[in-house]
Amino acid sequence: MAETVERWGVIDIALQGPSDGNPFADVQLSAKFTQGNRSVEASGFYDGDGAYKVRFSPDVEGEWSYVTASNRDELAGKTGQITCVAPGDGNHGPVQVVNTFHFAYADGTPYKQVGTTCYVWNHQGDALEEQTLASLEDAPFNKIRFCVFPKSYDYNKNDPQFYAFPQAQPQGDAKYAFDLTRFDPAFWRHFEKRVSQLCELGIEADIIVFHPYDRWGFKQMARETNDFYLKYLIARIAPYRNVWWSMANEYDLMPWYPMADWDHYFETFQRLDPYNRMRGVHNCRQNAFYDHSKAWVTHCSVQSSDIHKVPQWREQYGKPVVIDECCYEGNNRHCWGNITGEEMTRRFWRATIGGGYCGHGETYVNPEEILWWSKGGELVGTSPARIAFLRKILEDAPAAGLAPAGRRPVAACEGCASTGDAYFLAYFGVHQPASLTINLPEGKSYRIDQVDTWEMKIETLKESASGKFELAFAGKPYMALRIVAV
Amino acid sequence: MAETVERWGVIDIALQGPSDGNPFADVQLSAKFTQGNRSVEASGFYDGDGAYKVRFSPDVEGEWSYVTASNRDELAGKTGQITCVAPGDGNHGPVQVVNTFHFAYADGTPYKQVGTTCYVWNHQGDALEEQTLASLEDAPFNKIRFCVFPKSYDYNKNDPQFYAFPQAQPQGDAKYAFDLTRFDPAFWRHFEKRVSQLCELGIEADIIVFHPYDRWGFKQMARETNDFYLKYLIARIAPYRNVWWSMANEYDLMPWYPMADWDHYFETFQRLDPYNRMRGVHNCRQNAFYDHSKAWVTHCSVQSSDIHKVPQWREQYGKPVVIDECCYEGNNRHCWGNITGEEMTRRFWRATIGGGYCGHGETYVNPEEILWWSKGGELVGTSPARIAFLRKILEDAPAAGLAPAGRRPVAACEGCASTGDAYFLAYFGVHQPASLTINLPEGKSYRIDQVDTWEMKIETLKESASGKFELAFAGKPYMALRIVAV
Repeated sequence: MAETVERWGVIDIALQGPSDGNPFADVQLSAKFTQGNRSVEASGFYDGDGAYKVRFSPDVEGEWSYVTASNRDELAGKTGQITCVAPGDGNHGPVQVVNTFHFAYADGTPYKQVGTTCYVWNHQGDALEEQTLASLEDAPFNKIRFCVFPKSYDYNKNDPQFYAFPQAQPQGDAKYAFDLTRFDPAFWRHFEKRVSQLCELGIEADIIVFHPYDRWGFKQMARETNDFYLKYLIARIAPYRNVWWSMANEYDLMPWYPMADWDHYFETFQRLDPYNRMRGVHNCRQNAFYDHSKAWVTHCSVQSSDIHKVPQWREQYGKPVVIDECCYEGNNRHCWGNITGEEMTRRFWRATIGGGYCGHGETYVNPEEILWWSKGGELVGTSPARIAFLRKILEDAPAAGLAPAGRRPVAACEGCASTGDAYFLAYFGVHQPASLTINLPEGKSYRIDQVDTWEMKIETLKESASGKFELAFAGKPYMALRIVAV
Repeated sequence: MAETVERWGVIDIALQGPSDGNPFADVQLSAKFTQGNRSVEASGFYDGDGAYKVRFSPDVEGEWSYVTASNRDELAGKTGQITCVAPGDGNHGPVQVVNTFHFAYADGTPYKQVGTTCYVWNHQGDALEEQTLASLEDAPFNKIRFCVFPKSYDYNKNDPQFYAFPQAQPQGDAKYAFDLTRFDPAFWRHFEKRVSQLCELGIEADIIVFHPYDRWGFKQMARETNDFYLKYLIARIAPYRNVWWSMANEYDLMPWYPMADWDHYFETFQRLDPYNRMRGVHNCRQNAFYDHSKAWVTHCSVQSSDIHKVPQWREQYGKPVVIDECCYEGNNRHCWGNITGEEMTRRFWRATIGGGYCGHGETYVNPEEILWWSKGGELVGTSPARIAFLRKILEDAPAAGLAPAGRRPVAACEGCASTGDAYFLAYFGVHQPASLTINLPEGKSYRIDQVDTWEMKIETLKESASGKFELAFAGKPYMALRIVAV
């Protein structure tokens, strides 16, 4: 009888095969999954101890058959049936780009990106990692950026429990050595468990493939090693529907990889990932954006404090803009890690009314040096509650998404976004008008809501308004105005 | 016996002459003031009722002689003596540019520009004008921008008591008419009284010569009329040592005057003003700066919210940068008139650490529509006290002035200014580091002060520090760090 899996779920075809030699490198395995005229080819992977898997995520309900292919007879020509059933509660499928600048799940549910960053939360051991998951369960975030490789940096001095590659005997003065021709299945089982747990929480896993903060040697490997790593990563992790691929955190701080290599890694994901998961790459320096207009980039992943440029980047690249790093709320010694909760909230709002999306991170220093931005743990800042409030507003907004609007119906001091004539969201930030001149589109009535983005309160000022009029307004900072056609 | 006048004071040579015809246009009068080999030629002006004056401000102590010249015999060839004595208390002479980017009074006292704007405070009648003067006496401002002509705009609907030109009979539907071939001495006596009172208070009068907010016809006059007006303005007002000339408020909103006209008006001041008072011109739109590198411009008078560009403008124009308009603290319906006191204070600090200067204005709406920015009156905002605190810090800083500094001795999140290796002022704005890495210049000891720019408190963290070290810092927003060589 066929095994069942829900639509956009994950199923493993498990096989036994050779464990001699180096199965990671020597054994080729894949399976072709077929439904009617449609086939999806998925690469398999070696999981140690003679265990092989081909992991698959079907995107259409009904019966699928498969047949394996391998350079080893005992793994080749295996066939079977899978029954794909309706998705379970909370499973809306993978996130995709819609309406050029926005996102939706595959079932059509709008996805309003509200991200956070915990670079190596998955390298901290079970106790802290489970605390992070518990924090995420109560937090507003529906995407989290984190790394495959561990991190070596200020506030990040600990070694991880697992490494992607097995350790080897260090030579000479070297402190670390790895066998880069194999993988450590323990690492990968742990990693995929965390990805899967995020999926259960409804959180997209924005997986950072490379990054420069390293003392183990993973930041600068041969292109063949990277290709070997990518193939394994994709075979094992791509089937999780919540996966996004970030080629790098701060790719421009890894100048030893020429631009052609970055292009090549993007192309590798394009070629090997049968699910075509989201792909981006994150910069450090303001003037060092990767060319997000390249075909394999699905969205602009931006580090910048110039939030007012979101409309410009939309225009320039014609893709969704996600400010994955806009500085972090906290008080550490680095300028990128010590903005106030007010300013973090303001940056979320400014990205929103620019027609883009923003990302959070938290960097309050504590004696244990467990800073959320890197290790996860607890959230102690003031912005997450306000970001949750914004997320609710976004989820109540039109599914089509927001675009930067002009000076009608209101001269919003920090920007106004709209969905056609149906919906307007104006933000005032550090401006505090006590009155506003409203000039509504002709022939429609609107509800006028005053939104206190800091106190998290919404007050309806007019149930039904039209035309041009003067509106008494709060006269305090961090206010927004929501105008909804009724 | 010679009349006496203090150095940089004002003395009028009073003469009686013809009152028939149009003395404003028909009678030419000037005087040459001579001390040793040096002569200063000053134009005279007609003050009505047969009274003529040549107003003079000597800049060197000792004996001066004068002789008048005129196209009327009864005004020509008059001679006399003036004794110029030492300046009185608080008289430091006119402000001049020093060290390329900064200002000092003629006696060498540093002048740290801390401006405000009350566009037509001088058109509001004695009661309100005297209240404004009383407010200024207690305020931190040492420069005020205001207009010769009245203003017609939102919150500015009242007619003035005096007009520069005498009123005439309106024709047809016109509500106003003026005889633009004459001046109204009552207006000018009032105007110069206000300039003189500001001088007594130690406040520079940044006089706006033209502006576009007009319903009387003064915004668009024939070039000959403007020349006639300028000659009279200069003869009468230039001798006050606190005068600065601003060709316009928002010159770019007066497109009927081509750029050649603006150049011409600048040149007119250069040619006719024997004191070479400060000259600037203020823009509206960000991309419409007048070319401040032109020779007749003494300093960049800027309207902009992009305070972080001060170092760029210093570089570009090679002159002092004064952000005369950075938005105003208040709550009116216009985005330029409703920033918080916190943000206004922040903009002052950011201009300062960029090596420039800033200007205040206040726009809280009240039932009487007496907004400081335009009419003067009372100051009710939260920024003036903080601006006073900053002014004190600036006056305690090295006389040579501040220049934008790099990332040593501290990575200041919103910028750091310095005077060589002797003094550093770093500002953190919406950043709130709880610790900082300090890396002081070699071979010197420094006092380290933590400055709370909002609570207006200074705490010395270290009396004598040197080298590189970690410093515990406040962990709250709106803080600065002052580092002074000891």
